[in-house]
Amino acid sequence: MAHDGSIFSLTTPAVLIDETIVDNNIARVQKYMDQAGLKARPHIKTHKIPEFAKKQLAAGAVGITCQKISEAQVFADAGIDDILLTFNIIGAEKLEALKTLHEQITLTVVADSRETVDGLAATMDTSRPLSVMVECDTGGQRCGVQTPREASELAQYISSKPSLHFVGLMTYPIPNAEDAVEAFFEQTAGLLKQAGLECPIFSTGGSPSLFSAERATIATEYRAGTYIYNDRSLVRAGHCGFQDCAMHILTTVVSRPTDDRAVLDAGSKALTSDLLGFTDFGYVVDYPEAVITGLSEEHAVVDLSACSKKPEIGEKIRIIPNHTCVVSNLMNHIYVHRNGQFDRKIEVAARGKVW
Amino acid sequence: MAHDGSIFSLTTPAVLIDETIVDNNIARVQKYMDQAGLKARPHIKTHKIPEFAKKQLAAGAVGITCQKISEAQVFADAGIDDILLTFNIIGAEKLEALKTLHEQITLTVVADSRETVDGLAATMDTSRPLSVMVECDTGGQRCGVQTPREASELAQYISSKPSLHFVGLMTYPIPNAEDAVEAFFEQTAGLLKQAGLECPIFSTGGSPSLFSAERATIATEYRAGTYIYNDRSLVRAGHCGFQDCAMHILTTVVSRPTDDRAVLDAGSKALTSDLLGFTDFGYVVDYPEAVITGLSEEHAVVDLSACSKKPEIGEKIRIIPNHTCVVSNLMNHIYVHRNGQFDRKIEVAARGKVW
Repeated sequence: MAHDGSIFSLTTPAVLIDETIVDNNIARVQKYMDQAGLKARPHIKTHKIPEFAKKQLAAGAVGITCQKISEAQVFADAGIDDILLTFNIIGAEKLEALKTLHEQITLTVVADSRETVDGLAATMDTSRPLSVMVECDTGGQRCGVQTPREASELAQYISSKPSLHFVGLMTYPIPNAEDAVEAFFEQTAGLLKQAGLECPIFSTGGSPSLFSAERATIATEYRAGTYIYNDRSLVRAGHCGFQDCAMHILTTVVSRPTDDRAVLDAGSKALTSDLLGFTDFGYVVDYPEAVITGLSEEHAVVDLSACSKKPEIGEKIRIIPNHTCVVSNLMNHIYVHRNGQFDRKIEVAARGKVW
Repeated sequence: MAHDGSIFSLTTPAVLIDETIVDNNIARVQKYMDQAGLKARPHIKTHKIPEFAKKQLAAGAVGITCQKISEAQVFADAGIDDILLTFNIIGAEKLEALKTLHEQITLTVVADSRETVDGLAATMDTSRPLSVMVECDTGGQRCGVQTPREASELAQYISSKPSLHFVGLMTYPIPNAEDAVEAFFEQTAGLLKQAGLECPIFSTGGSPSLFSAERATIATEYRAGTYIYNDRSLVRAGHCGFQDCAMHILTTVVSRPTDDRAVLDAGSKALTSDLLGFTDFGYVVDYPEAVITGLSEEHAVVDLSACSKKPEIGEKIRIIPNHTCVVSNLMNHIYVHRNGQFDRKIEVAARGKVW
C-alpha cells in the first residue's frame, strides 16, 4: 500500500481522513461550547481512535463519552482518564469489567431502571462509590425513564446505595428538541431539590443540532460524536457543508456495463447500509450528479444518467458516506492526509468492540 | 467470557452458530447439487472462516468462491487450493497480489471489460496463464457484459492474450431467473462455438432460488454462500425454515422504558442496517410477535405491543438477522454450539478484508 504521495495512489476501498478538516471541526465545536458555557465531552464512537480523542481533550474537552465498556477499556488503556459510559451495564462479566475500569480511571455510568442500579450497587465497593447518572427519555424513545417523577425516584434510589453516588441527569435527545430537554431537566431538578439531592451534571448531546445547544440553558455538558468527521446526514441537517466532511471513501470504478451504470469496489462493507432517511448510499464528491442506487457487500451500483461527464474504468472517486460512525467500525485502519497528501495510517483501535 | 455450558451464559451481544444446523445445511445443498449434476463452489463471504470452508469441501465442493483478493489470501494461506475470484481485479497492488496468489493455488478470475483483461494480461506470465471467465449480466444489473455478442467478443479478446486462458462464463443472477441464465449462456455458447473457442465452465449462483438451479440445464457450477447459515431473507424466499437458521445474535434486554418498549444491547454494529426488503431489523426467535423497529449503533428498539408475554430487564433473547453475511463481517469471533451447548469460539479470519 502506498504510504506517501497522493491519496489517489492508495489501493481501494480506503477510508481517508483529512486531518486539517478534523482539526477545524474540533476547534469550531470547542469554541462554540466554550461560548455557550457547556463542557464538551465528545463521543468517541465516531472515530474509535485514542489519538483523535486526545486532540479533542487538548482542545478543551473535559473527558470522553463511550457507549460500550469494551470501547472505554481501549481509551482508558491509551491513557484517557475521565470517561462517561452512556449505557445500562448489565451482566456479571460486564459488571466485573466495569469495576476494574472504575479502579483505573474517573468513571461515570448511567442507569434507567432499578434493575440496572441493583447490579451496579452489588458490584461496587462502598470505599469507592461509582458515579451514576439517570438516563432520561426526552423524546428520543430509546432508553431512559419516562417522566421527571421517575427520574427523581431513581436518583433517590441510586442515592440510597452506599456503593453508588448520584451525580446527574443524562439524555440523548432528538435534534432541535432543546425545549423538551430543558423542561424535563428543570422539572426533575425541582423534584430533586425537594428531595434534598444535589444534581451537578445535566448532560445532553447530539451533533445534528449542536449549534443550538445553548437553548437548553440548564445543560452543563454536551456529548457529540459525528462532528469530528461530519457526514452527508449532518450536511442535510445544516450543521456543516460538504467541505467540512473529513471522511471520504476512496473507491475504484471496476465496471462500466452500460453508458448509465458504473460499479464501484465499495459496497455495504465499506459504505454501510445506513440510509438515515436518504434513498441512496452516499454523496459522490467527484461526480455530484451520480446516484448510488444499490449496494451489495463488495459492489456499489451507480446511476450516471444525470452526469454530463462520466467516470472511466480504473478511475478513483471519493464518496462522503451517509453516516460516518458505522464506517469507522468496519475498518481496521484509516488513512490520514492533509489536502490530499497522504500522511499516515492509523489503526481504528476500538473497532469491532461488541460489548 | 463463558467457554462452556449453555450459550445463554455468554456475554452479549454474541453471534451464535449452531454447528448441527451448519452441517445439515451443507449436506442438504451438496446432495441437491450432486443430484442436479452441478459442481458446488460455495461462496465464503457468508462465514469468512477457513474451518467452515473445509467442511464444505469435505462434503463435495470442488473449490470456493471469494469476492475479494484479500479474502482469497486468507483461505489460500489456510490451505484451500482452488479459488474462483468473482471480481474485476483492477489496480497495481491488487494485480501484484493476484499474481502471487496465482503462483500459490489454482486460481480463476472474472472480467467484464477489455480494461480489466488488459490489466490481467500485462501482469501474468505466459509460462503460467491465468484462467479467466467472462462475467455476464443476466438481469442482476450489477457487473457483467450486457449481451451474448459482447460476451463472445470479450472471450475472444481474453483468448488472444498469451498470459490468459479463457475458461467459461459466470453470472450472478437474480432469484428465479434460470431461464434468463439459460438463454444468455446458450446464445453465447453458440457464438463461442462459431469462433472455435472451448467453454468448459458455465457458473451461476445465489442461495434464494438454489433449489431450482437444475432449471438452467447448461450450468456446470453453482456458487452460493448464505445457505450455510441461512437467514430471515432466505426463510422469506422459501429456501428454508427458521429452524434451519444456524446464526443467532444473542442479546440482553437492557431497558424496558415503557410497557410496550424494550431496548436490546445489539444495534447496527451487531445486526447491521441491511433491510433486504423488510421494514424491521430481524426475527426475534424468543418473542416472535416482537418487532425491532429501529437500530442505532449499540441499541435495538423493540415494539412489544403485540406480545402477550414480554421480556424482563436482563433477559437474554435470540435474533435471526435479515442478512447473515454482513453480520459475520462485523465480528472478530463467533461462538459455536450444538443445540445450545457452547463448544468453541472461532476467529472470523477473513473479516474486515476491504480490498
